[in-house]
Amino acid sequence: MSGTPLSELIGHDARIELFKGLRDSGHLPFFREMQSAPAPTTDMEGRPRIMLGSNNYLGLSTHPLVVEGARRALSEYGTATTGSRLMNGTIALHTRIEAELAEWHGTEDAIVFTTGYQTNLGTIGALVPRGAAVVVDQYAHASIQDGCRLAGADMRRFRHNDPESLRAALAEIGTAPVLVVIDALYSMEGDFAPLRELVDVCEDFGAVLMVDEAHSVGLFGRRGTGVSEMADLAGRIPIRMGSLSKGLASTGGFVVGTHELVDTIRARARSFQFSTAGVPSSLGAALASVRVARSGEGRALAARSAENSRFLRSALDDRGVDVGRDPNVAGVSTSPIVPVHVGDDLRAIRAWRTLFESGIYCNTAVHPAVAAGSALLRVCVMATHTTAELESAADAIAHCLDLVAVA
Amino acid sequence: MSGTPLSELIGHDARIELFKGLRDSGHLPFFREMQSAPAPTTDMEGRPRIMLGSNNYLGLSTHPLVVEGARRALSEYGTATTGSRLMNGTIALHTRIEAELAEWHGTEDAIVFTTGYQTNLGTIGALVPRGAAVVVDQYAHASIQDGCRLAGADMRRFRHNDPESLRAALAEIGTAPVLVVIDALYSMEGDFAPLRELVDVCEDFGAVLMVDEAHSVGLFGRRGTGVSEMADLAGRIPIRMGSLSKGLASTGGFVVGTHELVDTIRARARSFQFSTAGVPSSLGAALASVRVARSGEGRALAARSAENSRFLRSALDDRGVDVGRDPNVAGVSTSPIVPVHVGDDLRAIRAWRTLFESGIYCNTAVHPAVAAGSALLRVCVMATHTTAELESAADAIAHCLDLVAVA
Repeated sequence: MSGTPLSELIGHDARIELFKGLRDSGHLPFFREMQSAPAPTTDMEGRPRIMLGSNNYLGLSTHPLVVEGARRALSEYGTATTGSRLMNGTIALHTRIEAELAEWHGTEDAIVFTTGYQTNLGTIGALVPRGAAVVVDQYAHASIQDGCRLAGADMRRFRHNDPESLRAALAEIGTAPVLVVIDALYSMEGDFAPLRELVDVCEDFGAVLMVDEAHSVGLFGRRGTGVSEMADLAGRIPIRMGSLSKGLASTGGFVVGTHELVDTIRARARSFQFSTAGVPSSLGAALASVRVARSGEGRALAARSAENSRFLRSALDDRGVDVGRDPNVAGVSTSPIVPVHVGDDLRAIRAWRTLFESGIYCNTAVHPAVAAGSALLRVCVMATHTTAELESAADAIAHCLDLVAVA
Repeated sequence: MSGTPLSELIGHDARIELFKGLRDSGHLPFFREMQSAPAPTTDMEGRPRIMLGSNNYLGLSTHPLVVEGARRALSEYGTATTGSRLMNGTIALHTRIEAELAEWHGTEDAIVFTTGYQTNLGTIGALVPRGAAVVVDQYAHASIQDGCRLAGADMRRFRHNDPESLRAALAEIGTAPVLVVIDALYSMEGDFAPLRELVDVCEDFGAVLMVDEAHSVGLFGRRGTGVSEMADLAGRIPIRMGSLSKGLASTGGFVVGTHELVDTIRARARSFQFSTAGVPSSLGAALASVRVARSGEGRALAARSAENSRFLRSALDDRGVDVGRDPNVAGVSTSPIVPVHVGDDLRAIRAWRTLFESGIYCNTAVHPAVAAGSALLRVCVMATHTTAELESAADAIAHCLDLVAVA
């Protein structure tokens, strides 16, 4: 509040003040520092803590083949490409990983971006003319909503996971073709999209469906490409997007589809053309991760992730903790993300703090990441957690919820 | 043109057809594949070629200390954090590099993003309320223009590097404070902003200046932080942005400034909060690069880059090639980017192809990356080029321009 032009531009912001207050008192659930790789038990701020907040779903970030893939790429290509893919940033590893992603997904082509956020921004921007309607699930990831904004699209939201609400939105627009964008697996609540019903509605209207498999690639389907494959709908979804930053233990995002789709993105996507390519070691790690995910070992890790999730859900249920309905899809699998609903933001932060002190880290979702009054602890399992770790975590979660209920 | 909803959505696009035609005939100057690290001579598509298109300005992407920094981070932290900085993506290396960037720049604080593109998007979005005016140089980087669009700002452009045009834009807006965003060194033409004059105008109007040092950090100033420091203006520029993806041989971007600025970005920037942190090896490389850039060795490499640029400019001039005026700043340094103006897009592509066949790679900037009819070969030097390489390149450039002038 020094009265500088910058202070005036920023203005007063109660949220920043709250952040600073919580940080100074050690209660801020954000920006906590890890001192080791994300593992079932991770060194965080001076002690080992059970890690229930990582998107390292398959445990690949320390897998010997994945680490070796990164190391080899670093030796062969140095620490950076220093250029945009368009100019001086394409290395042979890009060609290789794009070919492998396309083969894995059974598509003609694939394109890799430096981040998943930029993948959604660039893809939506490449496909949607200014002012055109785009229909998105109300809880679609921030990068999808930002992609619509940046494209200058007329963004319409339909009620979360509600095919009839999507139908009403498309009927209102009338003119085909319209882009529809959804997540396959929602990252905060851990619930799946009702993909078959949504695909049917899109086909009724000649709409083009784009599915974000950021949190599901590597985990679902016989070949591991995600929920679209698991639901046997991959052939009816023209645009599939995935992340390299979560289960695949790197950084980046990709889109798979026809040559026509991928050539269009290459030629038009600004976040692809005007950004430096990812570092070679991240490409080497991602390529090795894809290969592990496709192997028998990878499919076994995915099965183990589902078993761990069921075990934790059941252990929490036994202790009277509400984790909602198991979002079991056609009896095939379950989500690694287990939402523990708390409701009030400050109560969620107190619960998080109690857990952290007892040696457990999970994520906290407060407004505006979730609706006001719907704060939750986002607990998620890795394939590599032991049942002893998960049981001890269930005890601690039940205990901390009792404490904040009383307080 | 299969008549699918996707084809209809994409529509006909002559530019994509042109891309495909050039690609099929081997003449597309984009997406050429490197088979080694970017070095003065780089393996590209089956043979060594003199690399005059890399932003690896200081040659750090293969520097032993930088490679070792990446390798150590990979061993200690695994291949990925798999989380947003906000949640489960902050590792001790983030804390360390942010402290070092702040110390280097002499600011209170610093924040690192996963890409430079996201740094500009997130920072502008964190500072500019919807509908508020932002004034940008007409040639400001795409990420700055996209940042204004995503923020829903009222973006006004002033004439490139023209302080009087900036003054007129600010006078027209009237109400302070307004954000003004410029590049310090323009990436295609290689020219510098007239920083002192622009700072004066901003101060006259109480406007807040943000300077993008993406292509200048590591190269200029006694301490190497960029053009702002070289011009002795760092203390008068409230927002300095830099890239880790070019001279600093990694991927990512950063902002340095006051605690108030950085806390605001942390709390508000969506491209920061909703994107996975960079891989540990990229942070390790960036931290090591910053340390080399700050050292005597780094400052000697920056001097060598300027000498190489002067040598190439002079060699081209001797051969009758127009590279414009040397954008010498106060007699102190010169730009590593040497624009060779060609004019017509297709002629530039033919010139590029001739050079490529003779064993030289440079970048090609055609419309819309530059104004129509202003196509150029973007030639840039590294500190590590030998004079023999540069002389041989100057011969080849002069020769290829003669060829396309006749054709």
